[in-house]
This record gives sequence, structure tokens and C-alpha cells, in this order.
Amino acid sequence: MDQQLALHTDKYQINMMYAHWKQGSQDERAVFEAYFRKLPFGNGFAVAAGLERVVGYIQSLRFSDAELAYLRTQEEGYEEGFLEALREFRFTGSLYALPEGTLVFPNVPLVRVEARIFEAQLVETALLNMLNYQTLIATKAARIKQVAGEDTLMEFGTRRAQEMDAAVWGARAAYLAGFDATSNMRAGMLFGIPAKGTHAHAWVQGHDSEEEAFRLFADALPDQVTLLVDTYDTLRSGVPHAIKTAKHLEAQGKRMQAIRLDSGDTAYLSKKARKMLDDAGLPYVKIVASNDLDENIIFNLKAQGARVDSWGIGTQLITGGDQSALGGVYKLVARERGGEMIPVIKISGNPEKVTNPGLKEAYRIINRETGKAEADYIALMGEEDVRRGERIKLFDPVHPYIYKHIDDYEAIPLLKPIFEQGELVYELPTLEEIRSYHRSQLELFWPEYLRKLHPEGYPVDLSTAAWQLKMDLIAAHKA
Amino acid sequence: MDQQLALHTDKYQINMMYAHWKQGSQDERAVFEAYFRKLPFGNGFAVAAGLERVVGYIQSLRFSDAELAYLRTQEEGYEEGFLEALREFRFTGSLYALPEGTLVFPNVPLVRVEARIFEAQLVETALLNMLNYQTLIATKAARIKQVAGEDTLMEFGTRRAQEMDAAVWGARAAYLAGFDATSNMRAGMLFGIPAKGTHAHAWVQGHDSEEEAFRLFADALPDQVTLLVDTYDTLRSGVPHAIKTAKHLEAQGKRMQAIRLDSGDTAYLSKKARKMLDDAGLPYVKIVASNDLDENIIFNLKAQGARVDSWGIGTQLITGGDQSALGGVYKLVARERGGEMIPVIKISGNPEKVTNPGLKEAYRIINRETGKAEADYIALMGEEDVRRGERIKLFDPVHPYIYKHIDDYEAIPLLKPIFEQGELVYELPTLEEIRSYHRSQLELFWPEYLRKLHPEGYPVDLSTAAWQLKMDLIAAHKA
Repeated sequence: MDQQLALHTDKYQINMMYAHWKQGSQDERAVFEAYFRKLPFGNGFAVAAGLERVVGYIQSLRFSDAELAYLRTQEEGYEEGFLEALREFRFTGSLYALPEGTLVFPNVPLVRVEARIFEAQLVETALLNMLNYQTLIATKAARIKQVAGEDTLMEFGTRRAQEMDAAVWGARAAYLAGFDATSNMRAGMLFGIPAKGTHAHAWVQGHDSEEEAFRLFADALPDQVTLLVDTYDTLRSGVPHAIKTAKHLEAQGKRMQAIRLDSGDTAYLSKKARKMLDDAGLPYVKIVASNDLDENIIFNLKAQGARVDSWGIGTQLITGGDQSALGGVYKLVARERGGEMIPVIKISGNPEKVTNPGLKEAYRIINRETGKAEADYIALMGEEDVRRGERIKLFDPVHPYIYKHIDDYEAIPLLKPIFEQGELVYELPTLEEIRSYHRSQLELFWPEYLRKLHPEGYPVDLSTAAWQLKMDLIAAHKA
Repeated sequence: MDQQLALHTDKYQINMMYAHWKQGSQDERAVFEAYFRKLPFGNGFAVAAGLERVVGYIQSLRFSDAELAYLRTQEEGYEEGFLEALREFRFTGSLYALPEGTLVFPNVPLVRVEARIFEAQLVETALLNMLNYQTLIATKAARIKQVAGEDTLMEFGTRRAQEMDAAVWGARAAYLAGFDATSNMRAGMLFGIPAKGTHAHAWVQGHDSEEEAFRLFADALPDQVTLLVDTYDTLRSGVPHAIKTAKHLEAQGKRMQAIRLDSGDTAYLSKKARKMLDDAGLPYVKIVASNDLDENIIFNLKAQGARVDSWGIGTQLITGGDQSALGGVYKLVARERGGEMIPVIKISGNPEKVTNPGLKEAYRIINRETGKAEADYIALMGEEDVRRGERIKLFDPVHPYIYKHIDDYEAIPLLKPIFEQGELVYELPTLEEIRSYHRSQLELFWPEYLRKLHPEGYPVDLSTAAWQLKMDLIAAHKA
């Protein structure tokens, strides 16, 4: 997957780097936070994903001769000294991030970058690209997992994915949030995700009869037989032929795995097919459904008593469906001036777009009595009360007159060191470890925050000091 | 961009290939068509894109040792002879396609593959992945271009694109359908698209005052100055400071290019800013707008008299917004039996999902009197009347009692040979040639088919023989 990605950035990053280099400020340190302001899909949480990709990107970040030659062609007329600085470019900064699989909420940083402005600026575009997409898909997958319960979930979306990278990284994001398999073999090979597949309508069309097509497929792969039964007529042709095939396999001591429904009314057809299979003495043959599914359709099909064991989900998962982007942003929160880090703010006519200034730490506050997460709490770096577990005040930063105090809690720092002074200090977990960690994350939250429709809003609070700093900077800009 | 993509496919393709290999049918020839059934965005047309990527994929299609080793780990237990067949795999078939930039309509093939079933099956997933995404984005770009007229259009979507490939191929798709530039420098380098960029809020936040930030940016890049004016207060701070900067540049004999609005009410702010710039004697300073734009917002802003010269469009373009996938499919239409090609059909409970069987050619029927496209006409390969320009009957395949005849027409075959017997026979046009071809395509159609809202449906007809074949095969399956 290693690609030459130094120019996978917006031109304005290069132009700002150039302007910093021209004015001699390229080595000044800056702190950026990547976060989103709004949860996708009306969900109560998002699932952090993309960090492994970010690590690979940062590690291989170099400007090649070809890239420098391309920069020389640009109308900006970058000076050679600047291109020399790019040739020597390495990421020497620090990067802190939520581990993949962590539940994450609006305004909590997914990533914090502390680096020379020269470096921190360059990586913005690629970081957002990777984090936005993978977090979106992991979140969608978590929604689907929630309604599917213990049913098997298969990612089938490659043909509708937004180009190649989305197919494989989307399959990975789905798997870490609870999917069981992917149809994409490259994703299987790259990430060790179980790869699953049946056959297409073309297999049936490519034979003189459906019965013959089924039998020959079963003979070729007798231990992996899932038959697609809707090429001609599901109940009158497909299921009866599948039953014959199952009997043909039984005669060899083999068991057919499943049938697959890919069109028509899945509730009705699955119930009918289940009965036909059971009546034929084939209770072990499972039913797989596919056909433009999403979490709402699965929820409704299950409510109607659909007898589906396994769901193959494509378009709506791998693209996010009608919500195709997480609006993650990357904002400067502090910068060096005269050797000191000073907090900075961005004002906006839209109050939710005003940034939270300053170098900050984010904590998940776990109520020791319940063992459940009470709120996320964003404090200025160095605030001691929360680190010592002393009483803190939790208040809504939009309606600060709504508040409570908490005494008996554990404060878990959310952002882990990934790179420090350019060195990778984080051991990337395996995908299985990430899956397991994600499941344990879900257990930290009351179900009211996790439900699919109209979840309770989980509180993300600022410490009093962080809130006051924001108010002070807003007032200073007004003045 | 060359990657090892042989396993960028659904596992069921590999399993069908294996089953064909097991039964000895892997060399039988098959014909598949890739097409979509429904236009995206309620648009009247789509813009074909993705072919250049398809060509690169087909040319580099090989199974590496690593991929074969991975296949050996699969639970299917593929036999070594099959893996040997994969090791020798080359695409030796023929592929016909619409040139990029062609306007395309439902049920007209974007691509036709004629190849050994072994090959035709493998490439399905990757072909659909590339064609679906790039055609979707080119179509969205064409809609935006239609409302933007001669305004400058810039693709700004990388940070919200669905991973890396989407960012660069999406930028290319937008450019071929009328965009003028991209912010993505990798896309600029790979495809020669003009790359454009300004600066971010971070540049302003990174200085002690907006005025200083503007001046230093202008000093660094005096010939490329576009200033983002909304970091603190657009009209009270941003625009006045931009005007000062423009005067500072004028003093050096330079001209500032533009200001950029990225939040707030673009209609109001652009009119106010225009007046402030004009009053300051800066009529040449342009106004760029960005901020979650799409074709509907631009259309409405223009109707409100917004004074915007250049639009930067991100999320809604690069992902397709709320329509994130083109539902392209790849269907078997003919297969070899006993050395002869026979047409095949897929029946479905959904009438629009019943396939058009047979080896077919698609023509664009141009009325010689008007010079405009009358209909697309799908005939069986070898039908002579349309090729000779003799009278043909155009009828609606869903309502065949609605018909007319046409005598004075030119029939342009839509699908061009790209690969023949595995050899590339097509000279890939340059991106500029594609843009120009796309513009000429638009001129072939009455504006009623092209409008953004509720366009007239452009007819895609079957020849009488193609229609009759479909009816016969449906009847045969009923029997």
C-alpha cells in the first residue's frame, strides 16, 4: 500500500509552507486538533478509525525528485531553497490520537499534532481524508452491527465503493466495528479480514439450467456452497433446486452452507424459504440476504420476522449512503510566539464553528459507582484536579448554567502518544485487538447513548479553565 | 499509480473462476455489459468516466506470488492447478467502451467485455468500482458546470473524499466534465490538472494580526494572492485588511487576485465585498466562494445576485453528496455453447432488472435535419438497416405502442474498441482532448434533456429484433 503521498495535500498547504519559509517561521511550533462537530447518521457516537493508515502515511512522508520537479512547474515560482527544505522534509513532530475502535463524540480530538508549522500544515489534508472516511464507515458499521445482533455481517461493497482505496480501507473499518467478513480479497490479504464469497447470477445464466449450475458449483466447492436462488424465480425454481443440491451434497456426506436471496421481498421470501428448507430436513442450511440493505431495512425485516442468518451489505455501508462524509476539521489551537506556546482561536458567525483554543487534554470520565462513562472532559494541559481525581464540575459549554459535580470517578486520557519527536512510540494493535477493544468500549456507555434512533446526547464538557480561556479570547477579539 | 490489483475483486469471482476451471469451462467465451439503470441526482444524463483507469488496470493485471500464497490460505482449498492457471493469467479478451466524456443514459453499456469467462468474471468488480465512482463524479461536476456558466470552478474536496484514490480520480472526473482546477497537488501532478490554492484560517491565526498575516502572505507570493477574509469578521476586518494588502501590492506594481469567502451568507457578503472592493478602486480583485457548495446552492446564490467569480467545491462534489453511488451493474448477455454464442437473460420480479439479452451494438441516432441526438438505439450485432442508414423504428421498450420512424439520420456507434484479443488498440486521449470532446457532446443534445431540474427523458430504445429476442427469452423461461 505504500505510495508516494507527499503531494496528497491541498495546494494551499504548500503555499502556506512556502510563505512560512519565506518569512523564516517554518520551524515555529504549532498545535492542531482534528475533530468533527456533528455526528453522522443521527447516531449517538462515532467510532474512531484511520490511525493505522495515518501512521503509514507519516512514516513514509518524503518528497521525491518527481514531486519536486512538479513543484518547479507551478506558477507560484517556488524558490529552490524551499524545494531543498522539502527534500529534507521528515515528520519530526508529535502526534497523539484516539486508538482505533474508540467511541468518539463531537469536538473531542481524534488527533492532536504538535510539530513545526511546516510539518503540521502539510499533513492536514491527508489526515482528514483518512480519518473522515474510515471513521464514517466504522460508525455506519457499528449502527448495522447494533441491529444485526449475533447475525453474521458481510461487507459486499467494493463495486460501489468510491474507488479502490475506499473499498479496502472501508472493509477494514467495517470489520473493526463488528463486521465478520468482506468480499474484497485484497482487503482480506492486506488486513487478514476473513474473505467470503458465493456466486453471481452469471454462474446460473452460464449454464443450461439452474439445477445443473447449482450441482456443478457444489461439485467444485463442496465445503463452501452458498447458492444464489433468485436468478429466475426464488421459490418456484431457486429454493427447490438448492434443496436438490443439498441432498446431492448430503449423499457425499457434505452439508450445504446457505442460500442467498438478492431480490424481492426478503421478509416473505426468507420465511417461505426457511420453511421449505426445514420441511426438506435441512435446518442447518442458512439464509443469506443481500440487496441494498442498511441498518433501517435490517431492523424492519427482523421486526417482520425475516429468517435471515447472515447479511451482505454493500453500497449503504461502504459509501455511508446518503451521508457520504464526516465533516472532520483540523484547527490550529496554539502556536509558538517568542519561544512560548500561546492559545489561538478562530471566531465565526456560526457559534458551533468557534474553536476551543489552547493545548488541551481530553479525558473520559468514568463514574466509579456505575462503571459507566459520565462525560468527556476537555481540560487545559496541566490542569491538576482531574488528573488527581479531585472533584470537578461538569457543565454544558453551550448552557453553562446546567452543571453537576462529580467526585468518585476515573479520568482516562483519551489521546495516546503515537509519534514523539518524529519517532513512532505506539505499537499498532492487531485488527482482532481493535475489534475486541471496540466491543469493550461499547460496554462503557449506557444504552441510551448508543441507540440507533434519537439517542441521548453524550456530554462533552470543557473544564472551567478551558471554557474561561475561550470566553477571554472571544472577548479580546471583540475588543 | 500502478498497484497490484489482481485481488481487487470479490471472492465470488475467484470462486466462480475456480468452479469453471474445475468443470473445464474456463476458456468458454462470454459477453458482459456494464451499465446503470437509473441516472444519479435526477439528472438527464451521465458523463462516462473511468476508462483510463480501467485501461491501466487491465494492462497490469497479473497474479503475484504473494497473491497466490494468500489464495492458498483460503478455506476453499483451491487446487494448485488452478493457482497455476492464475499465475499465467493475462487479459486476452476484447473490451469496448464509451470514450470518457461521452454523455450516457440508462441501459446503454459503458463497457462491453468479450472474453474467456475466466477473464470476464475476474474484472467485473474492479471495472464497476472505477466506472461507478468516476462516472458519478463527472456527472455531478457537469451539473455544477451547468449552473456556473463561465465562472471558474475549483475542486476542493480531498479532505472529505472517501480515501486517497477517490480524491485524485474524483478530481480528474470533475476536470474532464468542466472544472478548471483542483486543490489536490497529486492529482495535478498525475494528470496535469491545474492546481490552485490560497491559504487557510491557520495562516491568519498564526500571526498576531490579520493585517500582518495578509501582508506577509502577499510578500511571499505576490503574484498569487487570494486572501481568506472570514477568520474574524468578513466585512469589518477581513475585507478592509484585504484592501490594504491590495494597495500594498499595487505599490509594487502587483495585482491581488482575489478574496475568498468561506462562511456566512455568501449572497450578502459577496455583494457587500464587491462594492467595498470597487469603491476602493479594485474592480480587478475577484471573489472566490467556498463552504459546502453544490449546484443548487450556486444556482440560488446566483439568482440572489451573489457577486462570485470563482467557486471552490468540496464535499458535495467529491462524494456525490447524498447520492454517493452510481448503481452500475455488469451482466452476462451472451455465452458460448458448443462453439456458438447464445444470448442469455436474467429474469427478475422487478421488471427494470430484467436484462437485455444478446450481443448488441449501441448507436446514437443523430437527426440530420436538426443535427441533434434523437435517441440511443440498441440493436443486435449484425443488424444491417441501422448501419446502412435505412429507415428504423424508434419505440419505447416499456411502452412499445409509442413509436415513430426515422429516415434521415446518422447512426454513431457508441462503443469504441479498447482492447482486442488482449491488445490495447485505443490511443488514450489527453485530458484536454476529453474535456473538449465532452463539450462537443453537450452540443449534440437539446437543452431540454440537459437541464438540472426535471429534464426530459432522453429515449434509449431497443431495435425491434433486440426487443423481440428479449420477449422470446422471457417467454421461454416462463414455459
